[in-house]
Amino acid sequence: MSALTAERLRQMDAPDLRRTLDELYADYIGCLDEERFEEWPEFFTDDCLYKIVPRENFDRGLPLATWLCESKGYLRDRVVAIRRTSVYGPRWIRRQVSAMRVLGWQGGLIEVRANYVAFETLLDEMTRVFNVGQYRDLVAVEDGRLKFKEKICVFDSLLVPNSLIYPL
Amino acid sequence: MSALTAERLRQMDAPDLRRTLDELYADYIGCLDEERFEEWPEFFTDDCLYKIVPRENFDRGLPLATWLCESKGYLRDRVVAIRRTSVYGPRWIRRQVSAMRVLGWQGGLIEVRANYVAFETLLDEMTRVFNVGQYRDLVAVEDGRLKFKEKICVFDSLLVPNSLIYPL
Amino acid sequence: MSALTAERLRQMDAPDLRRTLDELYADYIGCLDEERFEEWPEFFTDDCLYKIVPRENFDRGLPLATWLCESKGYLRDRVVAIRRTSVYGPRWIRRQVSAMRVLGWQGGLIEVRANYVAFETLLDEMTRVFNVGQYRDLVAVEDGRLKFKEKICVFDSLLVPNSLIYPL
Repeated sequence: MSALTAERLRQMDAPDLRRTLDELYADYIGCLDEERFEEWPEFFTDDCLYKIVPRENFDRGLPLATWLCESKGYLRDRVVAIRRTSVYGPRWIRRQVSAMRVLGWQGGLIEVRANYVAFETLLDEMTRVFNVGQYRDLVAVEDGRLKFKEKICVFDSLLVPNSLIYPL
Repeated sequence: MSALTAERLRQMDAPDLRRTLDELYADYIGCLDEERFEEWPEFFTDDCLYKIVPRENFDRGLPLATWLCESKGYLRDRVVAIRRTSVYGPRWIRRQVSAMRVLGWQGGLIEVRANYVAFETLLDEMTRVFNVGQYRDLVAVEDGRLKFKEKICVFDSLLVPNSLIYPL
Repeated sequence: MSALTAERLRQMDAPDLRRTLDELYADYIGCLDEERFEEWPEFFTDDCLYKIVPRENFDRGLPLATWLCESKGYLRDRVVAIRRTSVYGPRWIRRQVSAMRVLGWQGGLIEVRANYVAFETLLDEMTRVFNVGQYRDLVAVEDGRLKFKEKICVFDSLLVPNSLIYPL
């Protein structure tokens, strides 16, 4: 398959665009669920913004974020931290995404919303709901594929999970 | 984009029809999750039926419904009631939809099934599973867009959640 | 609609292939959620493999599986067992699927990954998360439709749910 260009993206018909975005989100979640964290920063453009923020703060415009990564370098630092983390017990996160909406174009970027759910399973415990929220994303073409220029994860709980070790 | 007509809908190829329905459900859920309740009745045709009913009752053909709105006017009344409700503590509902099936045409209507999950987050509490079930819908074209002529939410629990304040 | 052939499947464009797979998974889940278990073996090729296995075992290459069906005959035996089971209290399972990835072709088979979540509702109890995991599937064309040649359900919990009565 030839590399994706911004031009080709703009000319896609609606079913093709939606499929392409569906694939992006499925690939993103597959990468995280399978714990291929080293590949995770490659889902972002070089110049990017990644945030995890409680809905209360987001709605009020408060700047406080639970996670804040302002470039791909920050994302890579996160991955190093994840790999070095040993204070937490082993656990698996399984993510679901649905209700994806393409809001339209903003400059050369596609504005997308989707709902996510993360389930957490600790060893010898039953699976539980860990975190649910909304992805508020700006998607661009870079290096021949779709990447996140901006990804804001707005989660519903006021409680900051103390075990937010892995990306959403 | 030009307005959708029943004619155009009938002529859509399968990927286009599926994408159009995916968008309808994503928009519907986006409207509810973002609490834009005033827009919610506009997802229904003027003459419509909206019900929330426990699976036990549905399977036995019992008429008792947890919610029953027999026209768009009823839906609007619901929205007024939601906005005036103050006896319940604040909470957020986050919905997921998946496994959408297009069963076919019934008269000029498309018969659709999908699974939904609603997660509830109360202030200072962790998110929990609130309600899961099946959408059993009839979809029509009205005013140039897809709308629900009928939407039956059949939920799995026998327990009627006492906090079923918001639509599903 | 004419019967699907391996030839036609290979020539499908990407949106059409994705839609066709979306439909397969939605139909599969619809069949199980609506407890039409007798139809379930028909989602598999005659010569097939169906397994439910904990992630821990899968990752370590351990052979132990919670469920193991090595042909369509085994699947039919399972259905008989389900219908005869009376030691468990009544319950409903509601499944969600998302983040489907088409990894590519392997021989004449399509390799697919997707995440699933199963919610369980017992009579007079609230719905809870029952089991989450990944489908690791090989899909083929047989008898004019898509079928599973192989379906491995890798679930995240180390705990084997003692109530794994129904398929995933």
